[in-house]
Amino acid sequence: MAPSSDTSAQALLPNGLRDLLPPDAFSLTRASGRLMAVFAAHGYERVEPPLIEFEESLFSGAGHSASANSFRVMDPISRRMMGLRQDMTPQVARIAASRLRDAPRPLRLAYGGTVLRVQGTQLRPDRQTTQVGFELVGQNGTEALGEVVLVALDALEQLDIGPVTLDLVCPALVPALCEAAGLDPVTAERVREALGQKDLKAVETLVPAGQAAVFTALARAMGPVERAVEVLESLALPAQAAVHRDALLDMARRVLAFIGSGNVTVDPFEFRGFEYKTGPAFSFFARGARGELGRGGAYVNSFGGVNEPCCGVSLYLETLVEITGRSPECPRILVDPATSLAGRRALQDKGFVTVTSPGAPLDGDEARRLNCARWLSPEGDIRDASPPPVCGQAS
Amino acid sequence: MAPSSDTSAQALLPNGLRDLLPPDAFSLTRASGRLMAVFAAHGYERVEPPLIEFEESLFSGAGHSASANSFRVMDPISRRMMGLRQDMTPQVARIAASRLRDAPRPLRLAYGGTVLRVQGTQLRPDRQTTQVGFELVGQNGTEALGEVVLVALDALEQLDIGPVTLDLVCPALVPALCEAAGLDPVTAERVREALGQKDLKAVETLVPAGQAAVFTALARAMGPVERAVEVLESLALPAQAAVHRDALLDMARRVLAFIGSGNVTVDPFEFRGFEYKTGPAFSFFARGARGELGRGGAYVNSFGGVNEPCCGVSLYLETLVEITGRSPECPRILVDPATSLAGRRALQDKGFVTVTSPGAPLDGDEARRLNCARWLSPEGDIRDASPPPVCGQAS
Repeated sequence: MAPSSDTSAQALLPNGLRDLLPPDAFSLTRASGRLMAVFAAHGYERVEPPLIEFEESLFSGAGHSASANSFRVMDPISRRMMGLRQDMTPQVARIAASRLRDAPRPLRLAYGGTVLRVQGTQLRPDRQTTQVGFELVGQNGTEALGEVVLVALDALEQLDIGPVTLDLVCPALVPALCEAAGLDPVTAERVREALGQKDLKAVETLVPAGQAAVFTALARAMGPVERAVEVLESLALPAQAAVHRDALLDMARRVLAFIGSGNVTVDPFEFRGFEYKTGPAFSFFARGARGELGRGGAYVNSFGGVNEPCCGVSLYLETLVEITGRSPECPRILVDPATSLAGRRALQDKGFVTVTSPGAPLDGDEARRLNCARWLSPEGDIRDASPPPVCGQAS
Repeated sequence: MAPSSDTSAQALLPNGLRDLLPPDAFSLTRASGRLMAVFAAHGYERVEPPLIEFEESLFSGAGHSASANSFRVMDPISRRMMGLRQDMTPQVARIAASRLRDAPRPLRLAYGGTVLRVQGTQLRPDRQTTQVGFELVGQNGTEALGEVVLVALDALEQLDIGPVTLDLVCPALVPALCEAAGLDPVTAERVREALGQKDLKAVETLVPAGQAAVFTALARAMGPVERAVEVLESLALPAQAAVHRDALLDMARRVLAFIGSGNVTVDPFEFRGFEYKTGPAFSFFARGARGELGRGGAYVNSFGGVNEPCCGVSLYLETLVEITGRSPECPRILVDPATSLAGRRALQDKGFVTVTSPGAPLDGDEARRLNCARWLSPEGDIRDASPPPVCGQAS
C-alpha cells in the first residue's frame, strides 16, 4: 500500500501537516498504547484535557513560552480567543491545580494527545505531533526525579528502540554562577549561549580574567556520569550554584543506583527548551533518532498562584516511532463474503486478519491481489495464494 | 479522585469543552483500542489524517455540510484558511481518492480521532468528541453493506454495553416517491420533514388526495424488520422508488441472514444526518444511551471527481463510553521509593499498580491515603492497608 504520487491541488496538505498511512498510523497508536500502559502500571492515571482552551488558561504559567507559536481560533459563542495546545503539560498543571487540587499528593497523572504549532523546526518540520507523558505532582526532590526517570526508561524499553542515552542537565546552574560573578544580565545571557554551544573561548572574552576558571572547571563535568560526579563533587562553587550542583549530583547518584552508568551523561551547560525547569532536568537520546526522544525534569507549577513542586517527562511519539522496529504484520486471509461472524472470529483467533472481496471470485489470484497470503476454500481449507508469476523483465 | 469544585476563573474551560479525569480518560482510550482492534481483525487498516487542513480539501464533497459549524484558523505560513475537522470521513475519502488511489479495491481503512465543532446540539452539547470508524472503499452493494454492519456489531459487542438495536433506513426513498408524485421541491421537502416526524396527517394535507396512500402504506413498514420486509415486498412503487426499496430490502435480508432478527428495525422515513448517503443506511442504538451510538451506510465518494462507491460506519466514542461498564481497577500497592525496577515489575506482573510516596512513612495509613489497598513491607511482605477508622458521626 505505497502512497501514490498525487497532482490534485485539492489533495495538498499545508506544509508540516501530513496523512499517516498504513502501517505507520497503526505503529503510532501501538507505541502510544505501550507507553501509556507502563505509566499506568506505575500509578500514573490518564487525564484528557481538550484540544482548545481559552488563551488565558492555555498560555498562563508554564504555557507562556508556547504563546507565540500557537494557533488561535475565535470562539463565536463566548466571543473570546482560544488557543490550540502546543504542549499538554500546562494543561495537566492546570488540572492538578484546579480540578484535582484536593486529590492526595503525590498526584500521578499521565496524558497523550495531539499538539500543534504554527511553525516546526528545521530538524522537525512537523506542525502536528503527538506528545505522551506523565507528571508527578507535589514533589520534585531527588527521589521523585529518580522515579520519573525510572518510569520513562521502563516505558522506552517497551518500544524496541535499542539503548537509550540519558543526558542529565541543570539549567539553573550557569545563571547562578553568572549572578555570583556579578555579570550584568546581557553578558550573563551571552555567557549562557556560549556555554550552550560549548564555546569556552567566547566565555573567556566575555567574563573578567580569573572568573572564567569556574566555567572551564565545570566543562570537565561534561560527559559520562561517573567522571561528571567526581568533577562536580570536587568543585568549589558559590552558595546558590552549589545548591543546584548538589541537586544535579543527587539526581546523578540516584540514577546510577537505579539503572547503572552504562548510558548516562551529564551536560552542565545545556538549557535550551528547559526554560521553565527550575531544578535538575534530563533528555533521552537514541542512535538513529532525529533529535531527542523526550525530556523532563523538576519545575514549580505556578498555575493559579499555587507554586507546587512537580516533575515529569514528555516523550515525542513520532520521533520514537521512526526508530521503532516494525512488528510482523498479521497474515491476511481471503474469505467468502457470506462467512458468518463466528467463522471469521475462528480465523482471527488463529492470528489471521479476515478479508472479503464482494462480487469477485474466491481464489488465489484474488487473494494475492488483496495482499492475502491465504484464502479459505468453499470446502473450508486454508490454502496458500499461488506465488506471483516470475517476472522476466529486469526493472 | 472526585473532581473538586473550582472557582478560579483561569481554570474555566469554554462551554462544551471539558477535561476528562481518571478513570474516564482511561475508559475512553480503552474503548477506542477495543473498537480499532476489531476493525483491524477484519482488514481495516488505520490511517491518520491531520487535525487541520485547508478549507478547500476539508469541506469539499461529503465535507461540505460540516463547513458552517467548523472552526477556522489562519495559516500564517501559506496565508490560507484552514479548518479544524468536524468529521473524519471526508478526510478518509480524500486519502482514498488521492494518496491511496492506486491501492487495490475494495480498500479498507479505519480511523479514530478528535473532531471539533463550533456548536454542539441540545442532546450533545460537547464541542469536542472522538470519532471512531471504518470505510470500505470501492463497493456499496448489499454484500459490502452487510459486512460493515457485521464488523460494527462485532466491535460494539466488545464494549459490554448490552443489546444493540440496528435501525435500517433509506434516505433516498421518500424523495424518489415525491418526485414520482410530481410534487414541487418545496412541498417535497415539507413532506419529507413531516414523514421524518412520523406525522402522516400533515402529509395528507400536503399531497393531492389519492397520492397519500403510498406514504400511509410505507408507514406500515416502520418497526421490526420481519414485518417491514413483508410490507416492503408487497408495495407497488414507482420505478426509482422501487430501486431504493429493493436496496433497503436486500440490506435487511442480508442483515437478517448474518445476525438474526432480534434487534433490527426499519424506518423508511428517517433521513436526518444522512444527507450524503445515496443508498441504504443505518443507525445503532442501545438502552440508556443519549442518542445514537453511531451510524453508517452507502455513499459515493466524489472527492476529486472520482465518484467511487463506498460504505462505512462512524461510532461516537463518548456516547459509547457513557454506557460501557467500568472495568475493575487494578489494585494499587504502596512500595518504597528505593524499590528497583525489577522489584516493581514483579509486582506489576501480579496485577498490581505500584505507587511510591517519597519522603513519607511506608505503612498502612500512607497506603490508604494514596488509595492503595496494599503495601509492601521492608521485609518484602504484601500487607493489607488497615481499614479506615469507623466514623462515629453521621454525615
